[in-house]
Amino acid sequence: MKSLNRKGISILGATGSIGKQTLDVIRNHRDAFRLVAFSVGKNIPLARKIIEEFQPEVVSVSHREDWLSLKSEYTGNIRFVYGMDGLIEVAVHPNADILVNAILGSVGLLPTLKAIETRKRIAIANKETLVTAGHLVMTKAREFDVEIIPVDSEHSAIFQSLQGENPKEIEKIILTASGGSFRDYSREELKNVTVEEALHHPNWSMGAKITIDSATMMNKGLEVIEAHWLFHVSYDQIDVLLHRESTIHSMVSFQDKSVIAQLGTPDMRIPIQYALTYPKRFPNLSEPLDLAKLGTLHFQRMDMKRFPCLQFAYEAGRMGGTMPVVLNAANEVAVNAFLEGKIRFLEIEDWIEKMMAKHHSISEPDLDTILQVDQETRNEMNHWESIKNGR
Amino acid sequence: MKSLNRKGISILGATGSIGKQTLDVIRNHRDAFRLVAFSVGKNIPLARKIIEEFQPEVVSVSHREDWLSLKSEYTGNIRFVYGMDGLIEVAVHPNADILVNAILGSVGLLPTLKAIETRKRIAIANKETLVTAGHLVMTKAREFDVEIIPVDSEHSAIFQSLQGENPKEIEKIILTASGGSFRDYSREELKNVTVEEALHHPNWSMGAKITIDSATMMNKGLEVIEAHWLFHVSYDQIDVLLHRESTIHSMVSFQDKSVIAQLGTPDMRIPIQYALTYPKRFPNLSEPLDLAKLGTLHFQRMDMKRFPCLQFAYEAGRMGGTMPVVLNAANEVAVNAFLEGKIRFLEIEDWIEKMMAKHHSISEPDLDTILQVDQETRNEMNHWESIKNGR
Repeated sequence: MKSLNRKGISILGATGSIGKQTLDVIRNHRDAFRLVAFSVGKNIPLARKIIEEFQPEVVSVSHREDWLSLKSEYTGNIRFVYGMDGLIEVAVHPNADILVNAILGSVGLLPTLKAIETRKRIAIANKETLVTAGHLVMTKAREFDVEIIPVDSEHSAIFQSLQGENPKEIEKIILTASGGSFRDYSREELKNVTVEEALHHPNWSMGAKITIDSATMMNKGLEVIEAHWLFHVSYDQIDVLLHRESTIHSMVSFQDKSVIAQLGTPDMRIPIQYALTYPKRFPNLSEPLDLAKLGTLHFQRMDMKRFPCLQFAYEAGRMGGTMPVVLNAANEVAVNAFLEGKIRFLEIEDWIEKMMAKHHSISEPDLDTILQVDQETRNEMNHWESIKNGR
Repeated sequence: MKSLNRKGISILGATGSIGKQTLDVIRNHRDAFRLVAFSVGKNIPLARKIIEEFQPEVVSVSHREDWLSLKSEYTGNIRFVYGMDGLIEVAVHPNADILVNAILGSVGLLPTLKAIETRKRIAIANKETLVTAGHLVMTKAREFDVEIIPVDSEHSAIFQSLQGENPKEIEKIILTASGGSFRDYSREELKNVTVEEALHHPNWSMGAKITIDSATMMNKGLEVIEAHWLFHVSYDQIDVLLHRESTIHSMVSFQDKSVIAQLGTPDMRIPIQYALTYPKRFPNLSEPLDLAKLGTLHFQRMDMKRFPCLQFAYEAGRMGGTMPVVLNAANEVAVNAFLEGKIRFLEIEDWIEKMMAKHHSISEPDLDTILQVDQETRNEMNHWESIKNGR
């Protein structure tokens, strides 16, 4: 039974960085929210803690073995599920009002589409959903009159800056970029950076994949494609501005030359909470922004040559069709290869560039085509990787 | 007859800085706006130019002599009026949809109240109206369901940042202050500054009175009182932040620790235009903001000891009643005395402090009481001034 007062929340990817911070928001507003379902990948110990603290109704895991052991462990009313069916069951749970899609990778796509069909608000943190299938997701959201509320700080800033405004009066969307771990490195210096160096992000504490994506600027590139879909703007209307402090989370410039921006401390719980409480804003215990203490904010023009991954993303976005699928899959495999020490940092961009050059984009792809191109790209790259590593 | 498409604009104070820029906005949007009436003080040559360019229906001047000469000069359909009756006739003109109140001093008060009664939108740039009679103006505006749209850049920024938001969720309003002409001077260095030095504002090109008010920080103090009335917030909810570049025009911090800000180049035509087009935003030829070119923005905590006038304004605002009337009148007389070379820069604050210390505030004053206290304060100060100058 749906609680009359409390909104039901489902989380895909509850043990990741965004997932854990979503749980923190629910924890801080137990009178407003309750966790009804969640999915985890391999982190079963943390899943147990979440089950015990939040008493959800449905829990989904990746692997059948984990499903079997959890099922035997808990004898109460909790239903355990697994695999893609499990993710979908979490996403469409009848007691959930909001789906927080915080899972990594293209597995988030199908459950999101299913959740839209059951008219849940989608708080979206899974980049792949919009990057690879923005046309499908936004069309379906309009069809079912569902709100897609961005969770990451940049898109949340834009979404907030657009409140009370007419989207037709947008001149530019300005995404700010901290520049990531290597913002002060030359191309030459980038050649031999280590995984440890790459994982040290200056402003935000995030997962490994997104931290590397920040260092290559692919993260911003994916955000450009997301912004295109979320806010119905052309790629010419999206600018990226280097802003070391990440204090202005992003901005909208209107046709009267007025700029509206959202600012804050680097605390992801603020935009996560907003996605859950929108259009309201709930009080919280996050640190207030203290600009006098910060003292100075810096801004710098983006150099596409310094960050070719951003350029690739604009190109893939403009080409459209399945090109962003290749961009995203190639990046994911390359970043994993880098994290596993198999390739060097600058090879990430080489691999993406090669895969994009080979691909013939298919326009208006359906879900199957997207998933197929995604898989083909990964297969081909893993083959390369095996060859490269002499296996 | 009201134009079906074009909004009629009346301007009180058409030859001042804001007035002239309002004319520029009308000039750039002749398909949307037309000037129906305006007032000037002594600048009759400019009044003639405005008449010839905009062909208004009513023109008001300060002095009877100017009225007589203009009346004999123009034989067409233009009606000439003068004095307070003239200001009121401009303010309530039946073909005006919007009154831009850009006049200096407390003469703007009565015409504004009359315009509200005729249900015109008020684009307010006259500080005295809200500082001395905020309770009367806002009560009447609610009664007649009239929009009071701020024109100056700080309040416009806050007004814009509040679009689509719930005012009950405001935590703080943060007014930014450039620091004025002497922001880098010590108290010691302020002792002997000249009028010429004071009139050189680092960011904005404005009238003499407001430029001196920026240097003493009284301008920000008056804005604090205006913000209190415009946005229904307590004085504890209003902060002032030093921000040299005046790029962030002001901000609102909400209870979820999210901050919304409006930014732009220092071009008053942007907020003036917004006050006329609200809730729409029209395109214009103003310079777009280029943060990368600016490079850095600086922020610094406000030092009330360094700027006692700001402290006086908070005190007057908190005491309420007629105390802000005294603050404003004392400041106006003192600034004029400084501009005329009769007193030194730091004596401005001495005079204000003395007048406030002597005054017994009358709560909930009506219009007559406000005008009486205003006049009494001026009279008393002019008496002092005569004594000081040996007359």
